[in-house]
Amino acid sequence: MTYCIGLKVNDGLVFLSDTRTNAGVDNIAKVKKLFTWKLGGDRAIAMMTAGNLGITQAVISELDEQLARQKPGDTTLATADSMFYVAQLVGDVMRDVQARYGPGLTARGADSSASIILGGQRIGGSPRLFLIYPEGNFIEAVDDTPYFQIGENKYGKPIIDRVVTKNTELQDAIISALLSMDSTIRSNLTVGMPLDLAVMRTGSIDFEENRRIDSDDDAYHTFSETWSQQLRNAFAVMRTVKV
Amino acid sequence: MTYCIGLKVNDGLVFLSDTRTNAGVDNIAKVKKLFTWKLGGDRAIAMMTAGNLGITQAVISELDEQLARQKPGDTTLATADSMFYVAQLVGDVMRDVQARYGPGLTARGADSSASIILGGQRIGGSPRLFLIYPEGNFIEAVDDTPYFQIGENKYGKPIIDRVVTKNTELQDAIISALLSMDSTIRSNLTVGMPLDLAVMRTGSIDFEENRRIDSDDDAYHTFSETWSQQLRNAFAVMRTVKV
Repeated sequence: MTYCIGLKVNDGLVFLSDTRTNAGVDNIAKVKKLFTWKLGGDRAIAMMTAGNLGITQAVISELDEQLARQKPGDTTLATADSMFYVAQLVGDVMRDVQARYGPGLTARGADSSASIILGGQRIGGSPRLFLIYPEGNFIEAVDDTPYFQIGENKYGKPIIDRVVTKNTELQDAIISALLSMDSTIRSNLTVGMPLDLAVMRTGSIDFEENRRIDSDDDAYHTFSETWSQQLRNAFAVMRTVKV
Repeated sequence: MTYCIGLKVNDGLVFLSDTRTNAGVDNIAKVKKLFTWKLGGDRAIAMMTAGNLGITQAVISELDEQLARQKPGDTTLATADSMFYVAQLVGDVMRDVQARYGPGLTARGADSSASIILGGQRIGGSPRLFLIYPEGNFIEAVDDTPYFQIGENKYGKPIIDRVVTKNTELQDAIISALLSMDSTIRSNLTVGMPLDLAVMRTGSIDFEENRRIDSDDDAYHTFSETWSQQLRNAFAVMRTVKV
């Protein structure tokens, strides 16, 4: 399984993914699910993937192949006229990959479903965040619900629902995403360290952060332990409340 | 959907259920899912149900009919020789009900799945907690994992995983269950107030608490708001931790 969360607040975009993949419980591996591009000097794009790994890798590879073989007039991640058209392109590639492999997978009773969180920003544009479905269609994050989750989304949803609005500061959005991930990792074996984190500030076409957080990362360990302690403290207060 | 959680700590058993049921999003109703019995002067039993409402209501009704028509030598909730045999009886009734309606439901593409958390205590026995599956087989809560959840279990799992062990005090187990429910209700529309709560202390064959918590319950409202405030406080501390 997988857990990825993408947030769009006024100050920018946050992308956080785990790196665990599994095909059955005895076939567990570490695989990158967060991909970033800085393209054409006018845009930065990030994607996070969940679902059938063959499908999602094919989508990412095809998008990269298009960039490598780009001819004038081609619509690629680097040339699409807006983030909306970038989302449309990614959706189209998803649709093509599904058309190629979906029926064969279905015939064997395997699941071809896959989804992608896509976000980015072009010079002169605003940050935009999309959720692309296996069918290639997509929805966009709106002010009322400024985030998308894919994969094991339920464990980490309560903290997001309590904290995140479009007005949340960028650093707070990062903290929320990490706490959401921390809860998920503790409750579900198919989501695991290391984590990949990318952050893009509104008005910039570069990543303010784009890094891996390893399982032996001291700062993350302290962060996780501090949250546990804070929750214990909060719980201790609840003992004083009659219900 | 539904959310029910049952905990077995050294000091006793806690049962907490919501009361929302839905068949599609436009057919939502309030229905009791927590049932308690004090029987034969020697035992107290509680059950919580999730899944197909026709199936679970049939199981509970059949168990009650058996009690009403009990003849000498019959094995019923009141006469089964141990909590293990109570679980076996409930599983057998589940199996019979599934045999009667399951194939018809499957033929129409409907889901007959259902599950029951069963707990109780007989004079001279220990509190025991079981999870009964649609097939009638069941598992028992053990010291390492002293709780069962049915229905929408994921949202409310992280807080339980962080707090509850077999050594957790009974009042803390109640608080944990309520916090777990509170998170679930906030994140999932198909789980809703009012709540039903039952508590049985180890060594007693009566319910120390057995009550409904309505949506306008002032104490619960204060409890829920205090938890929100405590989480915000905890989050504020996290801002000071570099990650």
